[in-house]
Amino acid sequence: MSSSTVDPSDPVFDLHRGGKLAVASTVPLSTREDLSLAYTPGVARVCEAIAAEPALVDDYTWVSHAVAVVTDGSAVLGLGNIGPRAALPVMEGKAVLFKQFAGVDAVPVCLDTQDTEEIIATVRALAPSFGGINLEDISAPRCFEIERRLDEALPIPVFHDDQHGTAIVVLAALRNAAALLNRKLGDLRVVLSGAGAAGVAVTHMLVAGGVDPAAVVVCDSRGIIHAGRADLTPTKAALAELTNADGRTGDVTAALRGADVLIGVSGGQIPAEAVAGMAPGGIIFALANPTPEVHPEVAGRYAAVVATGRSDYPNQINNVLAFPGVFKGALAARATRVTDGMKVAAADAIAQVVADDLSAAAIVPSPLDPRVAPAVAEAVAEAARRDGVTRS
Amino acid sequence: MSSSTVDPSDPVFDLHRGGKLAVASTVPLSTREDLSLAYTPGVARVCEAIAAEPALVDDYTWVSHAVAVVTDGSAVLGLGNIGPRAALPVMEGKAVLFKQFAGVDAVPVCLDTQDTEEIIATVRALAPSFGGINLEDISAPRCFEIERRLDEALPIPVFHDDQHGTAIVVLAALRNAAALLNRKLGDLRVVLSGAGAAGVAVTHMLVAGGVDPAAVVVCDSRGIIHAGRADLTPTKAALAELTNADGRTGDVTAALRGADVLIGVSGGQIPAEAVAGMAPGGIIFALANPTPEVHPEVAGRYAAVVATGRSDYPNQINNVLAFPGVFKGALAARATRVTDGMKVAAADAIAQVVADDLSAAAIVPSPLDPRVAPAVAEAVAEAARRDGVTRS
Repeated sequence: MSSSTVDPSDPVFDLHRGGKLAVASTVPLSTREDLSLAYTPGVARVCEAIAAEPALVDDYTWVSHAVAVVTDGSAVLGLGNIGPRAALPVMEGKAVLFKQFAGVDAVPVCLDTQDTEEIIATVRALAPSFGGINLEDISAPRCFEIERRLDEALPIPVFHDDQHGTAIVVLAALRNAAALLNRKLGDLRVVLSGAGAAGVAVTHMLVAGGVDPAAVVVCDSRGIIHAGRADLTPTKAALAELTNADGRTGDVTAALRGADVLIGVSGGQIPAEAVAGMAPGGIIFALANPTPEVHPEVAGRYAAVVATGRSDYPNQINNVLAFPGVFKGALAARATRVTDGMKVAAADAIAQVVADDLSAAAIVPSPLDPRVAPAVAEAVAEAARRDGVTRS
Repeated sequence: MSSSTVDPSDPVFDLHRGGKLAVASTVPLSTREDLSLAYTPGVARVCEAIAAEPALVDDYTWVSHAVAVVTDGSAVLGLGNIGPRAALPVMEGKAVLFKQFAGVDAVPVCLDTQDTEEIIATVRALAPSFGGINLEDISAPRCFEIERRLDEALPIPVFHDDQHGTAIVVLAALRNAAALLNRKLGDLRVVLSGAGAAGVAVTHMLVAGGVDPAAVVVCDSRGIIHAGRADLTPTKAALAELTNADGRTGDVTAALRGADVLIGVSGGQIPAEAVAGMAPGGIIFALANPTPEVHPEVAGRYAAVVATGRSDYPNQINNVLAFPGVFKGALAARATRVTDGMKVAAADAIAQVVADDLSAAAIVPSPLDPRVAPAVAEAVAEAARRDGVTRS
């Protein structure tokens, strides 16, 4: 099909022709004997065994290594609500990363609905085919309820990567940045700019990882989130309870005054003057893509360690450091869910990979570092067993 | 896991350990440049193009070769209602066959519901991720409504293989059997034993292929289906309208008196005495698995051509002759549905593969014959274009 929207000189279109995924058979099928084992009549004996003893589905089907990557296309990358079909290339890309880094077999499931109840019902219905559910690019606040209710309803891990993948890598990066600067997580004053899916999850992850919630201040587009605001969603009201013990009010500039750490997960620009008010020698993670909340060169003037979401600056905070290993570990342990303990273990494992060779330009591993996913998987599986959330 | 339901000496369990499927990436991912094309930031340009021009999803994602194999586990092989998890090995096997014979990438989707409305809603919701929907092992009569409503609702092919796959191969076999015996389809008196999913579809397919509906008699477990029966479902009432112009009544023995063709798709046993009443030199397809309605040796005493569903007798009527090529052809033509014309074309293509070398023991190709799927695909794609049901 010729098209005015496709730039023929852009190699990305050539690469994407026909998509990026295939299904492969792992068994031979060239003789009648093969056919009678992999399909009828032999397969019936495997079906009967699973019908008699349902846990055998983990042993004799692909659910032990298969994940659905589920989206409604409502919050895709920085593109917003582009719908399920336009979201499909991202989900295919995610599946490629799952395979490449962790050997996990992931299938894109792009849903033709953005209704919370319909999404929950659909994922519940298709869940028996998979060993885990990776929710992806579903907008806040619907993503919170969808994840919570699926997590309660399903006996398999449910993980919204935009929340927890980001949060895990941020915690890993903050651990290493603090170590490099000889600071303790519990002593840091942290400002989050952004209270969407990622902002909420990062806040909770940092607290689970040792940051003092009293010393965290979260801002949304209307400024600091505090208990006195009348416009808070239930999720933001819970953040107001948890954080900002001093009851600060005002805009992001007020929030940043004297802060040690700024974590931007909003896309909203933060002026240099606001950043200038931070305590000296601090940490800035400006994660919006493609345009960080603070330009990395500006951030470098006011902070000792700077990270972004971009691949063309040092310290790329990239979810791919987390999700392949998280699912591989959760699947290996036959975990029923992903606990905070498993997420903290994942963050520790990511941080550990580069802990012996820290510098301000290398607080996280490269997204292509092959050591990361196996280390994360092992740590997550161990944490799952420790937390007692395994099926067998 | 040790288990009393698993026979360790049975090679089928070894073969099935870990399942039979994997997902593979079709693009490289070893450098940062690869990552920036297959995933962020490059992938965003493909997403934007599809958002602007939705038809591009056919060109730049895997939907052009991806099919969902959807079941609710309610009528699996001859095992009955074993549920979605126990059905998964069959659906994985189906996906293996799709890949092996037609290069189609199929994903098992086993649903945790047997409610008609929930199944329809779920498949509608997940449809954007796939180029076709293969319904599988869903019990009658729900399968009829599910297929009809999904076919109406979705812009992609929906095909219940237990109905139409079987029907296509039966028509192919009957064409070649009739050719071998120098009989015309329109002159044959045909009895169907079984009015479930396969029986209904076979009846319609035979009529679409040239059999005279007036000369068809369909039996269910209560005997001949005729307009005078008060116990008919809407589907069976429609069959009574279409077939049995003479208004025959009675049991299968009465139906078979003087018949040229018996097609068993019920599993109900048919006594030798009943078969003995058929016209001499006829045709018997006894398709129940593993126990045909008439033992092939008994059938051979009364008929000139005998076929079964079993691989250990000649003339195996196996859906694998149809579904891989049907979907490959429908996807290649970007068909919006599977018309009767496409199904008849598929049957003709299957029959044609062995038409020059017919014998009573070889009226259909072997299920492993590599010539079949490409021939079926080409015929189906051509028929789709002829029937004007293509998207582009």
